[in-house]
Amino acid sequence: MIGDAGCAILRCLLGLAICLLPGIRKAQAVAQAPEKIIIDTDIGDDVDDAFALALAVKSPELQILGVTTTFGDTEARAKIADRFLGEVGRAEIPVMAGKATATKNPMSQRRYGDGGHFAKASHGDAVEFLLEQIRKYPGEITLVAIGPLMNVGAAIDKDAATFRKLKRVVLMGGSIRRGYGDLGYTAPVPPMPEWNINILNDVASARKLFAAGVPLFVMPLDSTQLKMDEVKRAFLFSQGAAVTDQLTVLYHLWGQETPTLFDPMTVAFVLRPELCPVHGLHIRVDEKGFTREEPGTANAQVCLDSSAEDFFKFYLKRVAAR
Amino acid sequence: MIGDAGCAILRCLLGLAICLLPGIRKAQAVAQAPEKIIIDTDIGDDVDDAFALALAVKSPELQILGVTTTFGDTEARAKIADRFLGEVGRAEIPVMAGKATATKNPMSQRRYGDGGHFAKASHGDAVEFLLEQIRKYPGEITLVAIGPLMNVGAAIDKDAATFRKLKRVVLMGGSIRRGYGDLGYTAPVPPMPEWNINILNDVASARKLFAAGVPLFVMPLDSTQLKMDEVKRAFLFSQGAAVTDQLTVLYHLWGQETPTLFDPMTVAFVLRPELCPVHGLHIRVDEKGFTREEPGTANAQVCLDSSAEDFFKFYLKRVAAR
Amino acid sequence: MIGDAGCAILRCLLGLAICLLPGIRKAQAVAQAPEKIIIDTDIGDDVDDAFALALAVKSPELQILGVTTTFGDTEARAKIADRFLGEVGRAEIPVMAGKATATKNPMSQRRYGDGGHFAKASHGDAVEFLLEQIRKYPGEITLVAIGPLMNVGAAIDKDAATFRKLKRVVLMGGSIRRGYGDLGYTAPVPPMPEWNINILNDVASARKLFAAGVPLFVMPLDSTQLKMDEVKRAFLFSQGAAVTDQLTVLYHLWGQETPTLFDPMTVAFVLRPELCPVHGLHIRVDEKGFTREEPGTANAQVCLDSSAEDFFKFYLKRVAAR
Amino acid sequence: MIGDAGCAILRCLLGLAICLLPGIRKAQAVAQAPEKIIIDTDIGDDVDDAFALALAVKSPELQILGVTTTFGDTEARAKIADRFLGEVGRAEIPVMAGKATATKNPMSQRRYGDGGHFAKASHGDAVEFLLEQIRKYPGEITLVAIGPLMNVGAAIDKDAATFRKLKRVVLMGGSIRRGYGDLGYTAPVPPMPEWNINILNDVASARKLFAAGVPLFVMPLDSTQLKMDEVKRAFLFSQGAAVTDQLTVLYHLWGQETPTLFDPMTVAFVLRPELCPVHGLHIRVDEKGFTREEPGTANAQVCLDSSAEDFFKFYLKRVAAR
Repeated sequence: MIGDAGCAILRCLLGLAICLLPGIRKAQAVAQAPEKIIIDTDIGDDVDDAFALALAVKSPELQILGVTTTFGDTEARAKIADRFLGEVGRAEIPVMAGKATATKNPMSQRRYGDGGHFAKASHGDAVEFLLEQIRKYPGEITLVAIGPLMNVGAAIDKDAATFRKLKRVVLMGGSIRRGYGDLGYTAPVPPMPEWNINILNDVASARKLFAAGVPLFVMPLDSTQLKMDEVKRAFLFSQGAAVTDQLTVLYHLWGQETPTLFDPMTVAFVLRPELCPVHGLHIRVDEKGFTREEPGTANAQVCLDSSAEDFFKFYLKRVAAR
Repeated sequence: MIGDAGCAILRCLLGLAICLLPGIRKAQAVAQAPEKIIIDTDIGDDVDDAFALALAVKSPELQILGVTTTFGDTEARAKIADRFLGEVGRAEIPVMAGKATATKNPMSQRRYGDGGHFAKASHGDAVEFLLEQIRKYPGEITLVAIGPLMNVGAAIDKDAATFRKLKRVVLMGGSIRRGYGDLGYTAPVPPMPEWNINILNDVASARKLFAAGVPLFVMPLDSTQLKMDEVKRAFLFSQGAAVTDQLTVLYHLWGQETPTLFDPMTVAFVLRPELCPVHGLHIRVDEKGFTREEPGTANAQVCLDSSAEDFFKFYLKRVAAR
Repeated sequence: MIGDAGCAILRCLLGLAICLLPGIRKAQAVAQAPEKIIIDTDIGDDVDDAFALALAVKSPELQILGVTTTFGDTEARAKIADRFLGEVGRAEIPVMAGKATATKNPMSQRRYGDGGHFAKASHGDAVEFLLEQIRKYPGEITLVAIGPLMNVGAAIDKDAATFRKLKRVVLMGGSIRRGYGDLGYTAPVPPMPEWNINILNDVASARKLFAAGVPLFVMPLDSTQLKMDEVKRAFLFSQGAAVTDQLTVLYHLWGQETPTLFDPMTVAFVLRPELCPVHGLHIRVDEKGFTREEPGTANAQVCLDSSAEDFFKFYLKRVAAR
Repeated sequence: MIGDAGCAILRCLLGLAICLLPGIRKAQAVAQAPEKIIIDTDIGDDVDDAFALALAVKSPELQILGVTTTFGDTEARAKIADRFLGEVGRAEIPVMAGKATATKNPMSQRRYGDGGHFAKASHGDAVEFLLEQIRKYPGEITLVAIGPLMNVGAAIDKDAATFRKLKRVVLMGGSIRRGYGDLGYTAPVPPMPEWNINILNDVASARKLFAAGVPLFVMPLDSTQLKMDEVKRAFLFSQGAAVTDQLTVLYHLWGQETPTLFDPMTVAFVLRPELCPVHGLHIRVDEKGFTREEPGTANAQVCLDSSAEDFFKFYLKRVAAR
């Protein structure tokens, strides 16, 4: 049993916290202009990008200026994004393709875009688009970066001053204290770069981003191993709504059992920052792709822990909403 | 070890059979006019109706004159058929609704049609449509009956003479020697009417059909417990084609694990009769819904056994074909 | 974004709470005599009883005085408990059978005990045993009641004064504000007695318990819909330890997909009360089996909410420990 | 429709075949002495070895002289076999370990044997044991070879003349016309050595075996991609018998979804040769591990096709039998 004194203090503190929360929530909901976002994604390999996009299109608080694709066959990825946006009634959102890069990745969801449904006539250049939008809305745009960082690196190379006029970058990437597979009940798993793929696939660009001087919010493996288990899938995939139907189809093309919703936490963070509390850290991306916590002034606000339950209560309600 | 003599005879016979088969196949494929069919379905509850429809729309040998819905909320079922046909590019196929009947059935896939995608402006009367088409094409139409037999009974009541001008009825229904759950490795399960739902839900109409004097081909539980297991689902649901995407979505709305493809065997039988070899039997439908084999002249050609493997090789190849 | 001031206060409070927790934990672990418990269970139907027993046998903080079986074929249940305890090396724990009652329940895990492995020569009477142990250890025994309440009711009828000398009863049962299926992301589901089976199967005994004047801790559906999903099953069922092997086998006999660990929360509460925080409530069990919250002095300490994540972190680590 | 003439001939032939079969079956069942077998296995990696062992221990027609382990950590494999045999009441069957070889294989089911339950005091040498038994029972022993061929190669090296006194070798290995993943409804998959692991892991020994002059029966990938799907698993894993409980536990340690019962076909072939009809072929094992069909006198009887349905009807009934 918990000692009575400790218990009393704890209850009191939690009580206070609970009292404060509604006020915070209300302040947040009142009268905000939609948040302008651009989503930079490698949709088509792991299925979590699609789940992130789904959350974004179901959120009226967001104004999606565009979707940009990165890594490998960016044109094929753009067609996947086209179809997804078309099927859910958001064909007006522009889709731009980054520069193609070499990869052996088979792209599990390639067939989804192959038929050309809702395919846009052409896809402009992702980096041009990104810089152009920043110039148009300086200090207003949140870049949600959920793929390898080729487009980000190229934008910094091309015009670092403009890039710095982003309101912020919210990044899925890194593995600070916990590695992949550490779910809190297993033996601890140390961070290993091979799972840290958004960083690993373009280490040079990652290093540029951490040095860019733009407000940077990082959702690493530590807080994003969010398992979309059979109970949650059964709920979501039986909604019969446009967005959930597309997720159902993409899930099966992906072909594995349990999606891990790494990427959607970035969008969730934009909408509900309390779902992934951040702390200022100085992160060094080393040449092997490790993201190491080091002494020094903070260059990123990093979320090291989250409640999967709270995340899914928010995510599932929102994406299933009619 | 098999005795040498027996073995030799057997090999010889099987060899001969194999030699003959290609000739038979070829004869069959050459120069046939498409088979005219009407599909009478309770699509929306069990998911096998959708799998039957999928096989039909992927088969150029068939001319689908129309789809008629039966049992319960026939209008909701018609909307499900509308959307399915629309999504797969076959919106031109007419969909007619039977008379609604009372049922407590929640209709697992109702949401699929709720949004009204591809919904036709209105659905004509199923029985009128059926009789009208028979008059137009006497002796040419195969009625594929994969739902409870309300429409069939009503058509016989209204104009038995016209009904008899069907080329044939191919029915999923009945349980002659094997009951549900008997998969060949368990203890035998006797037939029980509660699983024999296409008959049980309208016994009176079933009795009319077996007495109608129309050529009747019956695919009972004995030959249709065709399990769409995880391996087959993974194959089909990752095709990313229009038809397989719709099956994927409907499968999840259905919400159970393993579909049993009872109904698709009727369509497979029309296309490849060797997949479900029939024998003339005299079947009596008793008042409780049992389908009893009795002495007497055959009133139905009944398929009592089939190879699930052969069925699925045909079914999966056909539905996944591009 | 959360306002800066609110955020700062919240962080401060959470920080303080986190600082206090280790102290509380340590105090708890120091120098306690093992907690004497008796587990009254309907093991053999739903599989969660076995998961509760597994937690108990893996917990050195507990001294399991005995296991008593209740509801239906209590002798068959006792054999299941015998085998489980024997297989995990705890054959010394006595198993007593309650009075058999009529039920149509097929008992999914009956086969587990059928072979008679580790079966004790005979099972004494559950109610006699319970009262005898209370007399031996007055004020010391926690009764963990995870089945319908026949034994509890019979013990109160026989000797209410002795029953009141239990240290406490920790009960899985009831549905106060949330019904079954309400997982926090669906539409709210109101409490319904049909899911509240430990109460419903013997309402009279439940009413006696709530009026018995014994300290009563209640874990209702509100806080015990703890889903043992595919990720957690894969972890636990691949441990290859004696206890997890038995859970694996029982899980498959049960034959469904996702176990809900209702019952294990009672044992977890005994070990870690902070996993299911309780509040004093006055609960009235009505004649239909509803457990209604009413004004009045508290007759039970009820846990209305819990964190499934925290529960499973504790449960899985403990049961998988070597 | 099939043309009437062709159909008549076909029916007649099939009718004849069916008439002959019972006679053949009967002849086979009468009055045979048990077949002496030795099972050479890499139990512990893929789970199909355990399913093969399960079939053998449930078959009174077989006298299992011993189990020998091959490939990698053969001692750990021997402990797994020890426990399996002990748990199912067959601890008297000797288990011998082959020479350990280097491998990076993690051995999915290692934990099963780690506890040392039923572990024999020591394991004799597999090759010695094999040669000794052949000398004892010349011309009587069937070697069921379901692992990489280290022990087979070593036995030939040591005493080829004795090895030739085996009655026969029944081998799971090779991929003649079909590769892995070709289930009859996908695009054809050509044979590739990487899946042909029993051959690939010791090509030199495989070549010796095909040249040994011993009667050799080969069950390659062509006829052994037998998928143990969810329906079959649910049936088998809910039997609650000693053998099926062990398979349940090993299945979960293996940790994948769908076992492919490659190896059990060898044991099934010994019991029911009609389940995998063989043809004389000349097979050349090339240096890369391909098993190529070439002109020349037959050096193996190879089964190129089988009915998975017939296999499972036999397998499941037999292993689930009480």
